[in-house]
Amino acid sequence: MKVISVNFLSISGKESRAHSATFAPMQLHGHNFIGYRTSAQADLGAATRLAKSAFPLYSALHPEQKAAFLEAIAEEIMLLGDALIERCVNESGLPTARITCERGRTCGQLKLFAHHLREGSWVEARIDTALPERSPVPRPDIRRMLIPIGPVAVFGASNFPLAFSTAGGDTASALAAGCPVIVKAHPSHTGTHEMIATAVIKAALRTRMPEGVFSALYLPNEEAIALVQDPAIQAVAFTGSRRVGLTLLKAARERAQPIPVFAEMSAVNPLVILEGALRDQADTIARGLASSVTLGVGQFCTNPGLVLLVDSPSVSPFLHAFATQLSAVASGTMLNQGIHQSYREGIKALLASNGVTEIARGISAASRQATVAHAAAGGDEPSQGQPFAFTVGGEQFLSDKQLSEEVFGPSTLVVRCASESQLLQVLQSLEGQLTATVHATDADGLLLGPVASILVQKAGRVIYGGYPTGVEVSDAMQHGGPFPSTSDPRTTSVGTAAILRFVRPVAYQDFPPALLPDELKNENPFGIMRLVNGALTREKI
Amino acid sequence: MKVISVNFLSISGKESRAHSATFAPMQLHGHNFIGYRTSAQADLGAATRLAKSAFPLYSALHPEQKAAFLEAIAEEIMLLGDALIERCVNESGLPTARITCERGRTCGQLKLFAHHLREGSWVEARIDTALPERSPVPRPDIRRMLIPIGPVAVFGASNFPLAFSTAGGDTASALAAGCPVIVKAHPSHTGTHEMIATAVIKAALRTRMPEGVFSALYLPNEEAIALVQDPAIQAVAFTGSRRVGLTLLKAARERAQPIPVFAEMSAVNPLVILEGALRDQADTIARGLASSVTLGVGQFCTNPGLVLLVDSPSVSPFLHAFATQLSAVASGTMLNQGIHQSYREGIKALLASNGVTEIARGISAASRQATVAHAAAGGDEPSQGQPFAFTVGGEQFLSDKQLSEEVFGPSTLVVRCASESQLLQVLQSLEGQLTATVHATDADGLLLGPVASILVQKAGRVIYGGYPTGVEVSDAMQHGGPFPSTSDPRTTSVGTAAILRFVRPVAYQDFPPALLPDELKNENPFGIMRLVNGALTREKI
Repeated sequence: MKVISVNFLSISGKESRAHSATFAPMQLHGHNFIGYRTSAQADLGAATRLAKSAFPLYSALHPEQKAAFLEAIAEEIMLLGDALIERCVNESGLPTARITCERGRTCGQLKLFAHHLREGSWVEARIDTALPERSPVPRPDIRRMLIPIGPVAVFGASNFPLAFSTAGGDTASALAAGCPVIVKAHPSHTGTHEMIATAVIKAALRTRMPEGVFSALYLPNEEAIALVQDPAIQAVAFTGSRRVGLTLLKAARERAQPIPVFAEMSAVNPLVILEGALRDQADTIARGLASSVTLGVGQFCTNPGLVLLVDSPSVSPFLHAFATQLSAVASGTMLNQGIHQSYREGIKALLASNGVTEIARGISAASRQATVAHAAAGGDEPSQGQPFAFTVGGEQFLSDKQLSEEVFGPSTLVVRCASESQLLQVLQSLEGQLTATVHATDADGLLLGPVASILVQKAGRVIYGGYPTGVEVSDAMQHGGPFPSTSDPRTTSVGTAAILRFVRPVAYQDFPPALLPDELKNENPFGIMRLVNGALTREKI
Repeated sequence: MKVISVNFLSISGKESRAHSATFAPMQLHGHNFIGYRTSAQADLGAATRLAKSAFPLYSALHPEQKAAFLEAIAEEIMLLGDALIERCVNESGLPTARITCERGRTCGQLKLFAHHLREGSWVEARIDTALPERSPVPRPDIRRMLIPIGPVAVFGASNFPLAFSTAGGDTASALAAGCPVIVKAHPSHTGTHEMIATAVIKAALRTRMPEGVFSALYLPNEEAIALVQDPAIQAVAFTGSRRVGLTLLKAARERAQPIPVFAEMSAVNPLVILEGALRDQADTIARGLASSVTLGVGQFCTNPGLVLLVDSPSVSPFLHAFATQLSAVASGTMLNQGIHQSYREGIKALLASNGVTEIARGISAASRQATVAHAAAGGDEPSQGQPFAFTVGGEQFLSDKQLSEEVFGPSTLVVRCASESQLLQVLQSLEGQLTATVHATDADGLLLGPVASILVQKAGRVIYGGYPTGVEVSDAMQHGGPFPSTSDPRTTSVGTAAILRFVRPVAYQDFPPALLPDELKNENPFGIMRLVNGALTREKI
């Protein structure tokens, strides 16, 4: 076991920053980060022990200290410079512009949570002061707020090597909540992971966080289960396949003390185009939809994998325009060979399905193989995902359950419903979704209401006239919907409300002021919004 | 199947009120309430179909209409008059004063939720308005709020025949959230149930609620599982034993679409008395504790079943005072024979446990059998729960897992720890709790901090210098703690925050104002508090 940078602890913030810049981030070792040590072994027991001992110390820090830590992580990530972008592009096969943008998002969400902590009202403080004269019994003084739940296990996602991996949204929101984090690195982008983990550790050292606030391990699958089942772990965050998500859920429930797993799993993100929009905006929607289906080689959780229409004379011109657009999109390198293999199998199954017709395929890999960055960089066989579009009739769709399942990649299935009532029936038949979209015009007034009602029941985010890809990181975002899109539709994994996954409320009854958290003290030292005797106020008591 | 009162639907509020008073509530039939019909059969399919069809109608009602419904339920319960109190006393064996008080609590929480709906800010509206000029991509308009989750199954509790049964806290909070409710009646108090269900149905009719907003069934255990597994049901609320709670959880997870079960199960509610308090307040605490242990024949989820002390010369005088107080408390009728049987077995096991010493028992049933209300009223054998108090050493307690399990009834186990560090060790060894209490004085300063920290980690509500029985229904109350005290420590079953169990967030992106819920419209017609572009405000946009 090698000890890195422990002397950073005795260095002032400024000096350590200078030091940071000379730290060699590109010497990758493939080691595990166990608190402030590194090791060739993924010593799960040591990591969870450290997380457990860090928890009371870290959670008790002033919000400003936690905010500074989050900001320091963002700074250290930026200090990794182009080397991070290059490594991440090589490992993911995603283009430089996308990875640069994703880095911005990753740092942006760390800073957003820092801002959220400084504002402070997110703890939902509620205070009912004592009523000693009340009859028949006096009312005690009761003060309630959200407190962190304990150490959190975060599983890196394949499709967001930065924004949903080592220091991504799950890590940022768990740290913001006051919970130490243990990251299980995704095997598709280990170098990116190591660089980011180094940045987090450096940020933790220079902001003097307790050791164990962050660890990061390479774990084979069976040990990932052991991580979920370690008694120190109090919640799990995961983005990935339904199969793995359900496995983690099962493991978490078999514990002596079951814990929540926030798994974001699968969705086809239905997009409904009503007659008016189909007639008036065919070209615009054809272009927008083709772009949304193929963005990032279709590897977004919010990829629109299902398009729903009611048959009419407007359908053919639209499908023609859409097919033309999609055919012009080139294949792209997928995240890893497993994902590529699943995509190929999904397409093969669609091609073989009764009543399913291919209407377009994008430019094949063969015709552009020479220029593939991934092949040039790695030497692996290129895993090129070719765009596809299919159609099927509404009745056929309703009779074949498999057609409503996610095919992760740049393909979509257009369901041509025979009638408006069949459209509603198809919508009702769908499982829970992350998103659901409707395109309409004023002419669609009568059908729009019922369609929107069903979409709201089916999804966590409903979109009018747009596309589901592109998930804003903000206060109002909801990225989480009914099962199986996520394991808990009451939560979001994107936006500031993601912090609410890692907390629980505690009520303090008749507690001496000295023992109360600052958020619940009469003086309201942070000036947060509180519900005091039924009225929302920032005033002190 | 008999149709009752459907013509109430065509009667104005005032007339139906008059009608209500002449409706004969005391003719009990033992029938099921399936929407607005009654039936000898517990037709689960019909009830869930009605709930499902009522959901979109009921959830779309104006908050004022839902509030009026809740208030009407409270009014109809009061109109049942003394007949309800008498029936409930007979069925539960609980004293008239307690049941009268519980009726007040039941009606009070219905009215509290009505008030909560009228205020409206509980939907946690968050609005990020569009930034069309933002680069590189414009920000869409995103608006998020909590919406009801769907029909809820409520399991009546044995120990609160009014406040946690047919129209108790779970029903009130689910209806307030906008969810239809199907109640599974508790077999211990079927007449009370029928009277209350009649009151709810009358309130629903006179406030013109859609049929299916409320149904109530007598279900044997296997059909209770079918209720949990019915696809229409979207959440389950339960208060009862750990065994049954875990059975319902398992059933809910085996569904094609798993749903949350909010189960409040078991707790021993540790109460720590530190040296200063033991020395200075021995008599006061002895009296308060004996009263809390035996209140309601010890049949509260928050009953203090575990008392923790550090051995010192102050312990013996305290234990003597406590034993004296407890010995003076008479046995009382328990809720049903099953609970009584379990209590007897629990006491027997404690008496037979290594190192456990009985220090007091209350006045036995035999010496007061002649006056037992329950026996007089029913003819069943009286199920008299006799108060007990035991002591055990800290080391013995740590070595015998069973000693930390709940014995539901008027008994408590005093753990005499050999040292302060053993006290902390015992506290750390405990499972999750609904409540945890500490008594201390200024002299206990040094130990109080670590003790309070552990209590906060172990429980949903922490109490200083008081007793855990007596759960205030208010905004700040938290009644729900880490497993196994509840199945989801992020929720409460008491207080206004209980409504948050039955909702999920939905984000509306670029939605036309006409399709937005009122809570998210620019005009903010209800004047609720919203987070608009990062700032909490009641202003319109």
